[in-house]
Amino acid sequence: MNETLLLQKGRAFLALQPFSVRIGAELHALAPGHCELQIPVTGSILQQNGFVHGGVVSYAADNALTYAGGSVLGFAVVTSEFKINYVRPAIGQRLIARAEAVYAGKTQAVCRCDVFVQLDGEEKLCAVAQGTINLLPARDASK
Amino acid sequence: MNETLLLQKGRAFLALQPFSVRIGAELHALAPGHCELQIPVTGSILQQNGFVHGGVVSYAADNALTYAGGSVLGFAVVTSEFKINYVRPAIGQRLIARAEAVYAGKTQAVCRCDVFVQLDGEEKLCAVAQGTINLLPARDASK
Amino acid sequence: MNETLLLQKGRAFLALQPFSVRIGAELHALAPGHCELQIPVTGSILQQNGFVHGGVVSYAADNALTYAGGSVLGFAVVTSEFKINYVRPAIGQRLIARAEAVYAGKTQAVCRCDVFVQLDGEEKLCAVAQGTINLLPARDASK
Amino acid sequence: MNETLLLQKGRAFLALQPFSVRIGAELHALAPGHCELQIPVTGSILQQNGFVHGGVVSYAADNALTYAGGSVLGFAVVTSEFKINYVRPAIGQRLIARAEAVYAGKTQAVCRCDVFVQLDGEEKLCAVAQGTINLLPARDASK
Repeated sequence: MNETLLLQKGRAFLALQPFSVRIGAELHALAPGHCELQIPVTGSILQQNGFVHGGVVSYAADNALTYAGGSVLGFAVVTSEFKINYVRPAIGQRLIARAEAVYAGKTQAVCRCDVFVQLDGEEKLCAVAQGTINLLPARDASK
Repeated sequence: MNETLLLQKGRAFLALQPFSVRIGAELHALAPGHCELQIPVTGSILQQNGFVHGGVVSYAADNALTYAGGSVLGFAVVTSEFKINYVRPAIGQRLIARAEAVYAGKTQAVCRCDVFVQLDGEEKLCAVAQGTINLLPARDASK
Repeated sequence: MNETLLLQKGRAFLALQPFSVRIGAELHALAPGHCELQIPVTGSILQQNGFVHGGVVSYAADNALTYAGGSVLGFAVVTSEFKINYVRPAIGQRLIARAEAVYAGKTQAVCRCDVFVQLDGEEKLCAVAQGTINLLPARDASK
Repeated sequence: MNETLLLQKGRAFLALQPFSVRIGAELHALAPGHCELQIPVTGSILQQNGFVHGGVVSYAADNALTYAGGSVLGFAVVTSEFKINYVRPAIGQRLIARAEAVYAGKTQAVCRCDVFVQLDGEEKLCAVAQGTINLLPARDASK
């Protein structure tokens, strides 16, 4: 699949997720093994100190990991597990999650993600994540 | 602080988080080292297959971990890092995240969380998580 | 398989691992979904402060997770990934790692582990871990 | 501290760890935020299939993460937690763990590590890790 089609297909999937639509997620790039997901910062995704809520940062990491894995395994994938370290409060206008597949087998990919917050044009790292993406049948998803 | 006050204070904090309010999170129990957070399942927190979006499950785990840690360290805490394994699709009427502190020092707690989905009155485990909660100054949060 | 046979088979596997033999690991219990691995503390597994080296604690967690998963999936398994939080220096005479499977599908199990150190007869928690165990073919192990 | 002194000091620390000496770990590079640790593959670090035991791979990752964090925070550090994904069996002559600090505050660093196995001169990725390194007092290490 060429990258334009891959990105189109990825955006179509995102549009099917009510939660992603609600949160305002935008798929900016999708290529084999790479993904960039962005979320404009609005009042409704903050926590009590005015930072983007950690749950939104982890959503962005999780979804970017899934797309990076899906771009090499196919779209019927799930994130089976991931780990995230928050390194700075996310204060800014836009969250940018970039993920890449560091390994891909037939049914499983291991991916990493950096989440940045863009503040007045400058990007600052706010979280790093790492996780496993699986083709759906391999995960006993029917249970 | 007695548990009634702790729960009141916890609910007041939750009400200050626009994202938590929007997602419909409810704090059902808070005691030293223990927390139960629930989220009613509505259409807007689903993904494309009709399951609760993984980002909502990880939000629930993350926030429950934070509360369990905060209940022993004090409320000015953050989740510094966590890891989550999704074990079943979350299909049901209500997410229930129960977290406990397995270790608490002066500035740091290590907590675990089980996330269940309630379907027709029965609870099924859908994710397990583990993470570190830090008092805010220890995390260089001013950076 | 009854538990006596399971434990015998588990010990036979451990005896085939040169690294486990060298480190002095002992399998004390193995039942479906449960495992207890112990390591006597000797001078050669310490780090520079006289504590058991973190690498030994993580070895104990990793191997106990593998056995707990293997006890429900079959013996041809690997730990695909795990996460560990160290909560106290391991000072004592004996490391005790207890693991359990919290979920088991056909090809994958998610397990948790508590690692204690026994000091003068008393057990203290020194680490907690969580990870995924896979049947070997599912992990593209031939690559 | 210049890099030659940093590397000398790092090697002196490694020589003080009986477990690291026994396992044959060698510190090949240490610079602010970067570390390379190698372990020659010998019969005594294998598991039953002739691969390097996962516990040795996680030891290498853990120790490389600690050094990468220590190189920016100072030497009195510990790995508080880490996560590792094994992506390929480690078959070869030499393990090479390269770690870098992706964030460093005053008391805490977040680091990533790639572990390669060198087989007939070619390096293959066999594991990726991510974790938190803390200055010792911040971890309640006295408990």
